[in-house]
Amino acid sequence: MKFARFALKADGSIKQAVLREQTLYVIEGDIFGLWKYKGSSYDLNEVTLLAPLEPHSIIGVGKNYIAAGETKPEQLPKVPVFFYKPVTSVIGPEADIVIPSGVTEVKFESELAVVIGKQARNIQEQEAWDYVFGYTIANDVTAPQFNHPDGHWTVSKSFDTFTPLGPYLETELDLQQVRVQAQHNGTRKQDSELELMILSIPFLISYLSRILTLQPGDVILSGSPAGAEFMAAGELIECQIDGIGLLRNSTVAPPQS
Amino acid sequence: MKFARFALKADGSIKQAVLREQTLYVIEGDIFGLWKYKGSSYDLNEVTLLAPLEPHSIIGVGKNYIAAGETKPEQLPKVPVFFYKPVTSVIGPEADIVIPSGVTEVKFESELAVVIGKQARNIQEQEAWDYVFGYTIANDVTAPQFNHPDGHWTVSKSFDTFTPLGPYLETELDLQQVRVQAQHNGTRKQDSELELMILSIPFLISYLSRILTLQPGDVILSGSPAGAEFMAAGELIECQIDGIGLLRNSTVAPPQS
Repeated sequence: MKFARFALKADGSIKQAVLREQTLYVIEGDIFGLWKYKGSSYDLNEVTLLAPLEPHSIIGVGKNYIAAGETKPEQLPKVPVFFYKPVTSVIGPEADIVIPSGVTEVKFESELAVVIGKQARNIQEQEAWDYVFGYTIANDVTAPQFNHPDGHWTVSKSFDTFTPLGPYLETELDLQQVRVQAQHNGTRKQDSELELMILSIPFLISYLSRILTLQPGDVILSGSPAGAEFMAAGELIECQIDGIGLLRNSTVAPPQS
Repeated sequence: MKFARFALKADGSIKQAVLREQTLYVIEGDIFGLWKYKGSSYDLNEVTLLAPLEPHSIIGVGKNYIAAGETKPEQLPKVPVFFYKPVTSVIGPEADIVIPSGVTEVKFESELAVVIGKQARNIQEQEAWDYVFGYTIANDVTAPQFNHPDGHWTVSKSFDTFTPLGPYLETELDLQQVRVQAQHNGTRKQDSELELMILSIPFLISYLSRILTLQPGDVILSGSPAGAEFMAAGELIECQIDGIGLLRNSTVAPPQS
Protein backbone atom coordinates (compact mmCIF):
# COMPACT_ATOMS: atom_id res chain seq x y z
CA MET A 1 0.00 0.00 0.00
CA LYS A 2 1.28 3.47 -0.91
CA PHE A 3 0.58 6.32 1.51
CA ALA A 4 0.89 9.92 0.34
CA ARG A 5 0.51 13.45 1.67
CA PHE A 6 -0.38 16.28 -0.64
CA ALA A 7 -1.56 19.87 -0.94
CA LEU A 8 -4.67 20.28 -3.05
CA LYS A 9 -3.90 22.76 -5.84
CA ALA A 10 -7.46 24.15 -5.70
CA ASP A 11 -7.33 25.42 -2.11
CA GLY A 12 -3.92 24.52 -0.63
CA SER A 13 -5.44 22.19 1.97
CA ILE A 14 -3.15 19.39 3.14
CA LYS A 15 -4.45 15.83 3.11
CA GLN A 16 -3.32 12.23 3.56
CA ALA A 17 -4.21 9.56 1.06
CA VAL A 18 -3.67 6.07 -0.25
CA LEU A 19 -2.56 5.88 -3.89
CA ARG A 20 -4.10 3.26 -6.19
CA GLU A 21 -3.32 3.51 -9.90
CA GLN A 22 -3.24 7.28 -10.49
CA THR A 23 -5.87 8.12 -7.89
CA LEU A 24 -5.36 9.43 -4.36
CA TYR A 25 -8.05 8.17 -1.97
CA VAL A 26 -8.21 10.59 0.96
CA ILE A 27 -7.87 9.13 4.44
CA GLU A 28 -8.03 10.61 7.93
CA GLY A 29 -6.44 9.53 11.18
CA ASP A 30 -3.04 8.24 12.19
CA ILE A 31 -1.41 6.04 9.57
CA PHE A 32 0.50 4.28 12.39
CA GLY A 33 -2.70 3.69 14.33
CA LEU A 34 -6.34 4.09 13.32
CA TRP A 35 -7.31 5.63 10.01
CA LYS A 36 -10.17 5.37 7.57
CA TYR A 37 -11.13 6.39 4.07
CA LYS A 38 -13.06 9.68 3.89
CA GLY A 39 -14.77 8.86 0.60
CA SER A 40 -13.20 11.62 -1.50
CA SER A 41 -10.45 11.15 -4.07
CA TYR A 42 -8.24 13.22 -6.36
CA ASP A 43 -6.26 12.68 -9.47
CA LEU A 44 -2.48 13.09 -9.14
CA ASN A 45 -2.59 16.13 -11.43
CA GLU A 46 -4.87 17.96 -8.99
CA VAL A 47 -2.30 17.93 -6.19
CA THR A 48 1.23 18.85 -5.17
CA LEU A 49 2.80 15.85 -3.45
CA LEU A 50 4.44 16.52 -0.07
CA ALA A 51 6.82 14.33 1.93
CA PRO A 52 4.68 11.23 2.62
CA LEU A 53 5.00 11.68 6.39
CA GLU A 54 6.05 14.29 8.91
CA PRO A 55 8.90 12.40 10.57
CA HIS A 56 9.12 12.20 14.35
CA SER A 57 12.89 12.21 13.93
CA ILE A 58 15.43 11.41 11.22
CA ILE A 59 18.43 9.22 11.98
CA GLY A 60 21.11 8.61 9.38
CA VAL A 61 23.98 6.14 9.22
CA GLY A 62 27.25 6.94 7.50
CA LYS A 63 29.58 4.78 5.44
CA ASN A 64 27.09 1.94 5.14
CA TYR A 65 27.70 0.60 1.62
CA ILE A 66 30.66 -0.99 -0.05
CA ALA A 67 31.16 -0.37 -3.75
CA ALA A 68 30.49 -3.25 -6.17
CA GLY A 69 33.51 -5.58 -6.15
CA GLU A 70 34.69 -4.48 -2.70
CA THR A 71 34.52 -6.87 0.24
CA LYS A 72 32.72 -6.02 3.43
CA PRO A 73 34.75 -5.26 6.55
CA GLU A 74 35.27 -8.40 8.64
CA GLN A 75 34.27 -6.69 11.86
CA LEU A 76 31.26 -4.45 12.31
CA PRO A 77 32.09 -1.13 13.98
CA LYS A 78 31.68 -1.05 17.77
CA VAL A 79 29.95 2.33 17.40
CA PRO A 80 28.39 2.97 13.98
CA VAL A 81 28.48 6.49 12.51
CA PHE A 82 24.97 7.72 13.30
CA PHE A 83 23.76 11.27 12.81
CA TYR A 84 20.49 13.18 13.10
CA LYS A 85 18.93 15.45 10.51
CA PRO A 86 16.43 18.06 11.72
CA VAL A 87 12.79 17.62 10.68
CA THR A 88 12.93 21.21 9.40
CA SER A 89 15.17 19.97 6.56
CA VAL A 90 12.40 17.84 5.02
CA ILE A 91 10.86 18.75 1.68
CA GLY A 92 8.56 16.82 -0.64
CA PRO A 93 9.06 15.38 -4.11
CA GLU A 94 8.03 18.55 -5.94
CA ALA A 95 10.00 21.12 -3.91
CA ASP A 96 13.40 22.61 -4.69
CA ILE A 97 16.68 21.93 -2.91
CA VAL A 98 18.18 25.32 -2.03
CA ILE A 99 21.97 25.47 -2.44
CA PRO A 100 22.94 27.93 0.33
CA SER A 101 24.88 31.06 -0.60
CA GLY A 102 28.61 30.59 -0.37
CA VAL A 103 28.31 26.81 -0.38
CA THR A 104 30.17 25.38 -3.33
CA GLU A 105 29.97 21.66 -2.62
CA VAL A 106 26.57 20.04 -2.11
CA LYS A 107 26.23 16.30 -2.49
CA PHE A 108 23.16 14.23 -3.28
CA GLU A 109 22.84 10.83 -1.61
CA SER A 110 20.00 8.53 -2.67
CA GLU A 111 18.93 6.28 0.20
CA LEU A 112 16.32 3.73 1.22
CA ALA A 113 14.50 5.30 4.19
CA VAL A 114 12.98 2.92 6.73
CA VAL A 115 9.90 4.21 8.58
CA ILE A 116 9.31 2.89 12.09
CA GLY A 117 5.68 2.03 12.84
CA LYS A 118 5.58 1.37 16.56
CA GLN A 119 7.56 2.12 19.69
CA ALA A 120 10.72 0.00 19.81
CA ARG A 121 12.93 -0.45 22.86
CA ASN A 122 15.61 -3.16 23.28
CA ILE A 123 14.56 -5.02 20.13
CA GLN A 124 16.36 -8.15 18.90
CA GLU A 125 17.44 -8.25 15.27
CA GLN A 126 15.10 -11.13 14.49
CA GLU A 127 12.05 -9.17 15.67
CA ALA A 128 13.10 -5.86 14.05
CA TRP A 129 10.92 -6.30 10.95
CA ASP A 130 7.81 -6.16 13.18
CA TYR A 131 8.62 -2.52 13.89
CA VAL A 132 9.01 -1.45 10.25
CA PHE A 133 5.94 0.31 8.89
CA GLY A 134 7.25 0.89 5.40
CA TYR A 135 9.79 2.55 3.17
CA THR A 136 10.32 5.74 1.27
CA ILE A 137 13.19 7.33 -0.64
CA ALA A 138 15.42 9.95 0.93
CA ASN A 139 17.94 12.27 -0.61
CA ASP A 140 20.42 12.88 2.23
CA VAL A 141 21.73 16.17 0.87
CA THR A 142 25.02 17.19 2.50
CA ALA A 143 27.41 20.16 2.30
CA PRO A 144 30.74 18.56 3.27
CA GLN A 145 32.52 21.90 3.59
CA PHE A 146 30.48 22.26 6.82
CA ASN A 147 31.70 18.96 8.22
CA HIS A 148 33.57 19.84 11.40
CA PRO A 149 37.30 18.92 11.23
CA ASP A 150 36.72 16.83 14.39
CA GLY A 151 34.14 14.77 12.53
CA HIS A 152 30.75 16.26 13.42
CA TRP A 153 28.34 16.31 10.48
CA THR A 154 25.60 18.28 12.21
CA VAL A 155 25.88 21.53 10.26
CA SER A 156 26.63 19.94 6.88
CA LYS A 157 23.42 17.90 6.95
CA SER A 158 21.03 20.38 8.63
CA PHE A 159 20.27 23.06 6.05
CA ASP A 160 16.62 23.69 5.22
CA THR A 161 15.53 21.62 2.14
CA PHE A 162 18.39 19.11 2.62
CA THR A 163 16.13 16.07 3.19
CA PRO A 164 13.77 15.41 0.27
CA LEU A 165 11.50 12.46 1.11
CA GLY A 166 9.04 10.64 -1.10
CA PRO A 167 7.23 10.31 -3.33
CA TYR A 168 5.30 7.63 -1.40
CA LEU A 169 5.50 5.61 1.79
CA GLU A 170 5.26 2.00 0.58
CA THR A 171 4.34 -0.66 3.12
CA GLU A 172 5.11 -3.63 0.88
CA LEU A 173 8.51 -3.68 -0.74
CA ASP A 174 10.54 -6.69 -1.83
CA LEU A 175 13.96 -5.76 -0.46
CA GLN A 176 15.61 -8.53 -2.50
CA GLN A 177 14.62 -6.62 -5.62
CA VAL A 178 15.50 -3.13 -4.41
CA ARG A 179 18.10 -1.11 -6.27
CA VAL A 180 18.95 2.29 -4.78
CA GLN A 181 19.55 4.56 -7.75
CA ALA A 182 20.19 8.21 -8.56
CA GLN A 183 20.31 10.14 -11.81
CA HIS A 184 22.09 13.48 -11.87
CA ASN A 185 20.91 15.64 -14.79
CA GLY A 186 19.66 12.45 -16.40
CA THR A 187 22.85 10.39 -16.03
CA ARG A 188 22.80 7.44 -13.64
CA LYS A 189 25.33 7.90 -10.82
CA GLN A 190 24.15 5.54 -8.06
CA ASP A 191 22.82 2.03 -8.59
CA SER A 192 23.20 -0.51 -5.82
CA GLU A 193 21.45 -3.53 -4.47
CA LEU A 194 20.98 -3.78 -0.70
CA GLU A 195 23.42 -6.69 -0.66
CA LEU A 196 26.20 -4.06 -0.62
CA MET A 197 24.89 -2.59 2.64
CA ILE A 198 27.26 -3.16 5.59
CA LEU A 199 24.94 -2.79 8.60
CA SER A 200 21.61 -4.47 7.79
CA ILE A 201 18.23 -2.86 8.46
CA PRO A 202 17.49 -5.24 11.38
CA PHE A 203 20.94 -4.49 12.84
CA LEU A 204 20.32 -0.74 12.63
CA ILE A 205 16.89 -0.99 14.30
CA SER A 206 18.14 -3.33 17.01
CA TYR A 207 21.25 -1.24 17.74
CA LEU A 208 19.35 2.05 17.87
CA SER A 209 16.59 0.55 20.03
CA ARG A 210 19.18 -0.32 22.69
CA ILE A 211 20.16 3.36 22.88
CA LEU A 212 16.87 5.19 22.53
CA THR A 213 13.20 4.32 22.31
CA LEU A 214 12.32 4.47 18.62
CA GLN A 215 8.95 6.09 17.93
CA PRO A 216 6.30 5.73 15.21
CA GLY A 217 7.35 8.09 12.44
CA ASP A 218 11.07 7.82 13.11
CA VAL A 219 12.86 7.60 9.76
CA ILE A 220 16.14 5.72 9.46
CA LEU A 221 18.20 6.70 6.42
CA SER A 222 19.98 3.44 5.72
CA GLY A 223 23.05 4.87 3.98
CA SER A 224 24.20 6.06 0.59
CA PRO A 225 25.60 3.70 -2.06
CA ALA A 226 28.78 4.56 -3.96
CA GLY A 227 28.50 7.16 -6.69
CA ALA A 228 27.18 10.30 -4.97
CA GLU A 229 28.43 13.53 -6.51
CA PHE A 230 28.29 17.27 -6.09
CA MET A 231 25.44 19.33 -7.52
CA ALA A 232 25.20 23.03 -8.36
CA ALA A 233 22.09 25.22 -8.60
CA GLY A 234 19.93 24.70 -11.68
CA GLU A 235 20.37 20.94 -11.81
CA LEU A 236 18.09 17.94 -11.53
CA ILE A 237 18.53 15.06 -9.11
CA GLU A 238 16.34 11.98 -9.29
CA CYS A 239 16.54 9.38 -6.53
CA GLN A 240 14.84 6.18 -7.54
CA ILE A 241 13.78 2.92 -6.00
CA ASP A 242 11.45 0.89 -8.20
CA GLY A 243 8.46 -0.12 -6.13
CA ILE A 244 8.44 3.24 -4.33
CA GLY A 245 8.88 5.68 -7.19
CA LEU A 246 11.02 8.58 -8.31
CA LEU A 247 12.02 11.40 -5.94
CA ARG A 248 12.75 14.21 -8.36
CA ASN A 249 14.03 17.57 -7.10
CA SER A 250 15.63 20.53 -8.79
CA THR A 251 18.38 22.58 -7.17
CA VAL A 252 18.06 26.35 -6.97
CA ALA A 253 20.03 29.31 -5.64
CA PRO A 254 18.60 30.93 -2.49
CA PRO A 255 15.91 33.57 -3.02
CA GLN A 256 17.30 37.14 -3.01
CA SER A 257 16.29 38.78 0.25
CA MET B 1 7.45 34.20 34.89
CA LYS B 2 8.06 30.52 35.59
CA PHE B 3 6.27 27.97 33.44
CA ALA B 4 5.97 24.36 34.60
CA ARG B 5 4.55 21.04 33.44
CA PHE B 6 3.48 18.43 35.93
CA ALA B 7 1.61 15.19 36.53
CA LEU B 8 -1.04 15.47 39.23
CA LYS B 9 -0.34 12.83 41.86
CA ALA B 10 -4.08 12.28 42.46
CA ASP B 11 -4.93 11.09 38.93
CA GLY B 12 -1.75 11.24 36.81
CA SER B 13 -3.17 13.89 34.49
CA ILE B 14 -0.58 16.14 32.86
CA LYS B 15 -1.01 19.90 33.05
CA GLN B 16 0.82 23.14 32.31
CA ALA B 17 1.04 25.89 34.88
CA VAL B 18 2.63 29.13 35.97
CA LEU B 19 4.42 28.98 39.33
CA ARG B 20 4.00 31.82 41.82
CA GLU B 21 5.40 31.33 45.32
CA GLN B 22 4.72 27.62 45.96
CA THR B 23 1.52 27.46 43.94
CA LEU B 24 1.04 26.15 40.41
CA TYR B 25 -1.70 28.05 38.56
CA VAL B 26 -2.98 25.80 35.78
CA ILE B 27 -2.98 27.22 32.24
CA GLU B 28 -4.16 25.88 28.90
CA GLY B 29 -3.03 26.65 25.38
CA ASP B 30 0.33 27.14 23.70
CA ILE B 31 2.88 28.87 25.92
CA PHE B 32 4.57 30.20 22.74
CA GLY B 33 1.26 31.54 21.43
CA LEU B 34 -2.11 31.94 23.12
CA TRP B 35 -2.73 30.61 26.59
CA LYS B 36 -4.95 31.45 29.54
CA TYR B 37 -5.41 30.61 33.19
CA LYS B 38 -7.97 27.85 33.81
CA GLY B 39 -8.78 28.98 37.34
CA SER B 40 -7.50 25.87 39.17
CA SER B 41 -4.29 25.65 41.16
CA TYR B 42 -2.20 23.07 43.00
CA ASP B 43 0.43 23.07 45.65
CA LEU B 44 3.88 21.82 44.63
CA ASN B 45 3.52 18.84 46.95
CA GLU B 46 0.44 17.64 45.04
CA VAL B 47 2.37 17.15 41.78
CA THR B 48 5.32 15.46 40.12
CA LEU B 49 7.17 18.06 38.08
CA LEU B 50 7.93 17.11 34.46
CA ALA B 51 10.31 18.75 32.00
CA PRO B 52 8.85 22.28 31.66
CA LEU B 53 8.32 21.85 27.93
CA GLU B 54 8.23 19.12 25.30
CA PRO B 55 11.07 20.35 23.08
CA HIS B 56 10.59 20.58 19.33
CA SER B 57 14.27 19.70 19.01
CA ILE B 58 17.40 19.83 21.15
CA ILE B 59 20.61 21.31 19.76
CA GLY B 60 23.82 21.22 21.78
CA VAL B 61 27.14 22.96 21.32
CA GLY B 62 30.42 21.38 22.38
CA LYS B 63 33.53 22.93 23.91
CA ASN B 64 31.86 26.27 24.64
CA TYR B 65 33.43 27.34 27.95
CA ILE B 66 36.95 28.19 28.96
CA ALA B 67 37.99 27.38 32.51
CA ALA B 68 38.47 30.28 34.94
CA GLY B 69 41.88 31.86 34.29
CA GLU B 70 42.08 30.60 30.69
CA THR B 71 41.91 33.05 27.79
CA LYS B 72 39.36 32.67 25.03
CA PRO B 73 40.52 31.54 21.60
CA GLU B 74 41.33 34.54 19.37
CA GLN B 75 39.36 33.18 16.45
CA LEU B 76 35.89 31.69 16.63
CA PRO B 77 35.61 28.29 14.92
CA LYS B 78 34.48 28.39 11.30
CA VAL B 79 32.12 25.50 12.05
CA PRO B 80 31.13 25.15 15.73
CA VAL B 81 30.71 21.67 17.23
CA PHE B 82 26.93 21.30 17.16
CA PHE B 83 25.06 18.11 17.96
CA TYR B 84 21.45 17.00 18.37
CA LYS B 85 19.95 15.08 21.26
CA PRO B 86 16.73 13.14 20.61
CA VAL B 87 13.57 14.38 22.34
CA THR B 88 13.13 10.82 23.64
CA SER B 89 16.10 11.46 25.96
CA VAL B 90 14.23 14.13 27.95
CA ILE B 91 13.21 13.52 31.57
CA GLY B 92 11.91 15.87 34.22
CA PRO B 93 13.38 17.08 37.50
CA GLU B 94 12.04 14.19 39.54
CA ALA B 95 12.93 11.29 37.24
CA ASP B 96 15.98 9.04 37.39
CA ILE B 97 18.92 9.00 34.99
CA VAL B 98 19.41 5.37 33.92
CA ILE B 99 23.06 4.36 33.59
CA PRO B 100 22.89 1.80 30.73
CA SER B 101 24.20 -1.73 31.34
CA GLY B 102 27.81 -2.11 30.38
CA VAL B 103 28.41 1.64 30.36
CA THR B 104 31.08 2.54 32.87
CA GLU B 105 31.60 6.22 32.14
CA VAL B 106 28.63 8.58 32.24
CA LYS B 107 29.23 12.30 32.63
CA PHE B 108 26.93 15.01 33.95
CA GLU B 109 27.08 18.42 32.28
CA SER B 110 25.10 21.29 33.82
CA GLU B 111 24.04 23.79 31.18
CA LEU B 112 21.95 26.88 30.61
CA ALA B 113 19.26 25.83 28.10
CA VAL B 114 17.88 28.56 25.83
CA VAL B 115 14.28 28.05 24.65
CA ILE B 116 13.33 29.56 21.29
CA GLY B 117 9.91 31.25 21.25
CA LYS B 118 9.26 31.97 17.59
CA GLN B 119 10.37 30.85 14.15
CA ALA B 120 13.84 32.19 13.38
CA ARG B 121 15.47 32.23 9.94
CA ASN B 122 18.56 34.25 8.95
CA ILE B 123 18.60 36.23 12.19
CA GLN B 124 21.27 38.83 12.96
CA GLU B 125 23.04 38.59 16.33
CA GLN B 126 21.60 41.93 17.48
CA GLU B 127 18.02 40.73 16.95
CA ALA B 128 18.57 37.24 18.43
CA TRP B 129 17.19 38.10 21.89
CA ASP B 130 13.76 38.73 20.30
CA TYR B 131 13.58 35.00 19.54
CA VAL B 132 14.39 33.80 23.06
CA PHE B 133 11.33 32.77 25.02
CA GLY B 134 13.13 31.81 28.20
CA TYR B 135 15.60 29.56 29.94
CA THR B 136 15.73 26.30 31.78
CA ILE B 137 18.48 24.06 33.13
CA ALA B 138 19.71 21.02 31.21
CA ASN B 139 21.89 18.16 32.28
CA ASP B 140 23.56 17.06 29.03
CA VAL B 141 24.32 13.52 30.19
CA THR B 142 26.91 11.83 27.97
CA ALA B 143 28.54 8.37 27.77
CA PRO B 144 31.89 9.22 26.12
CA GLN B 145 32.78 5.56 25.56
CA PHE B 146 30.13 5.75 22.78
CA ASN B 147 31.78 8.71 21.10
CA HIS B 148 32.76 7.51 17.65
CA PRO B 149 36.55 7.54 17.07
CA ASP B 150 35.87 9.77 14.03
CA GLY B 151 34.24 12.34 16.33
CA HIS B 152 30.50 11.67 16.13
CA TRP B 153 28.75 12.10 19.49
CA THR B 154 25.35 10.85 18.37
CA VAL B 155 25.25 7.59 20.29
CA SER B 156 26.98 8.89 23.42
CA LYS B 157 24.36 11.60 23.93
CA SER B 158 21.20 9.78 22.81
CA PHE B 159 20.37 7.28 25.54
CA ASP B 160 16.90 7.47 27.09
CA THR B 161 16.92 9.67 30.26
CA PHE B 162 20.13 11.49 29.19
CA THR B 163 18.55 14.95 29.01
CA PRO B 164 17.03 16.06 32.30
CA LEU B 165 15.36 19.48 31.85
CA GLY B 166 13.85 21.78 34.46
CA PRO B 167 12.62 22.45 36.98
CA TYR B 168 11.02 25.54 35.40
CA LEU B 169 11.07 27.54 32.19
CA GLU B 170 11.91 31.07 33.35
CA THR B 171 11.14 33.92 30.98
CA GLU B 172 12.99 36.61 32.94
CA LEU B 173 16.56 35.84 33.88
CA ASP B 174 19.40 38.29 34.48
CA LEU B 175 22.17 36.62 32.50
CA GLN B 176 24.78 38.90 34.10
CA GLN B 177 24.02 37.20 37.41
CA VAL B 178 23.81 33.62 36.15
CA ARG B 179 26.20 31.02 37.49
CA VAL B 180 25.93 27.55 35.96
CA GLN B 181 26.57 25.13 38.80
CA ALA B 182 26.49 21.41 39.55
CA GLN B 183 26.79 19.43 42.75
CA HIS B 184 27.78 15.78 42.55
CA ASN B 185 26.72 13.88 45.68
CA GLY B 186 26.55 17.22 47.46
CA THR B 187 29.98 18.52 46.41
CA ARG B 188 30.14 21.46 44.02
CA LYS B 189 31.91 20.50 40.77
CA GLN B 190 30.78 23.10 38.24
CA ASP B 191 30.43 26.82 38.94
CA SER B 192 30.83 29.26 36.08
CA GLU B 193 29.59 32.66 35.03
CA LEU B 194 28.46 33.07 31.41
CA GLU B 195 31.46 35.37 30.83
CA LEU B 196 33.48 32.16 30.33
CA MET B 197 31.28 31.09 27.41
CA ILE B 198 33.08 31.17 24.05
CA LEU B 199 30.22 31.43 21.54
CA SER B 200 27.57 33.79 22.94
CA ILE B 201 23.85 33.03 22.99
CA PRO B 202 23.13 35.57 20.20
CA PHE B 203 25.96 34.09 18.13
CA LEU B 204 24.54 30.57 18.53
CA ILE B 205 21.02 31.65 17.57
CA SER B 206 22.22 33.69 14.61
CA TYR B 207 24.57 30.97 13.33
CA LEU B 208 21.98 28.20 13.64
CA SER B 209 19.26 30.33 12.03
CA ARG B 210 21.42 30.65 8.90
CA ILE B 211 21.49 26.84 8.60
CA LEU B 212 18.01 25.82 9.62
CA THR B 213 14.74 27.48 10.54
CA LEU B 214 14.59 27.45 14.34
CA GLN B 215 11.13 26.64 15.70
CA PRO B 216 9.21 27.54 18.88
CA GLY B 217 10.21 24.94 21.44
CA ASP B 218 13.69 24.37 20.06
CA VAL B 219 16.08 24.08 22.98
CA ILE B 220 19.72 25.16 22.60
CA LEU B 221 22.04 23.67 25.21
CA SER B 222 24.63 26.43 25.47
CA GLY B 223 27.58 24.31 26.63
CA SER B 224 29.05 22.80 29.75
CA PRO B 225 31.44 24.72 32.03
CA ALA B 226 34.64 23.12 33.30
CA GLY B 227 34.31 20.59 36.09
CA ALA B 228 31.99 17.89 34.73
CA GLU B 229 32.74 14.42 36.07
CA PHE B 230 31.69 10.81 35.76
CA MET B 231 28.77 9.40 37.73
CA ALA B 232 27.85 5.85 38.70
CA ALA B 233 24.43 4.42 39.58
CA GLY B 234 23.10 5.34 43.02
CA GLU B 235 24.39 8.89 42.99
CA LEU B 236 22.84 12.35 43.09
CA ILE B 237 23.46 15.11 40.57
CA GLU B 238 22.09 18.60 41.10
CA CYS B 239 22.36 21.14 38.30
CA GLN B 240 21.65 24.63 39.55
CA ILE B 241 21.09 28.10 38.17
CA ASP B 242 19.75 30.54 40.75
CA GLY B 243 16.74 32.27 39.26
CA ILE B 244 15.60 29.04 37.58
CA GLY B 245 16.01 26.48 40.34
CA LEU B 246 17.61 23.16 41.09
CA LEU B 247 17.47 20.24 38.64
CA ARG B 248 17.98 17.28 40.93
CA ASN B 249 18.20 13.75 39.53
CA SER B 250 19.38 10.45 40.92
CA THR B 251 21.23 7.87 38.86
CA VAL B 252 20.03 4.27 38.79
CA ALA B 253 20.94 0.97 37.18
CA PRO B 254 18.62 -0.20 34.39
CA PRO B 255 15.53 -2.15 35.48
CA GLN B 256 16.03 -5.93 35.27
CA SER B 257 14.05 -7.21 32.30
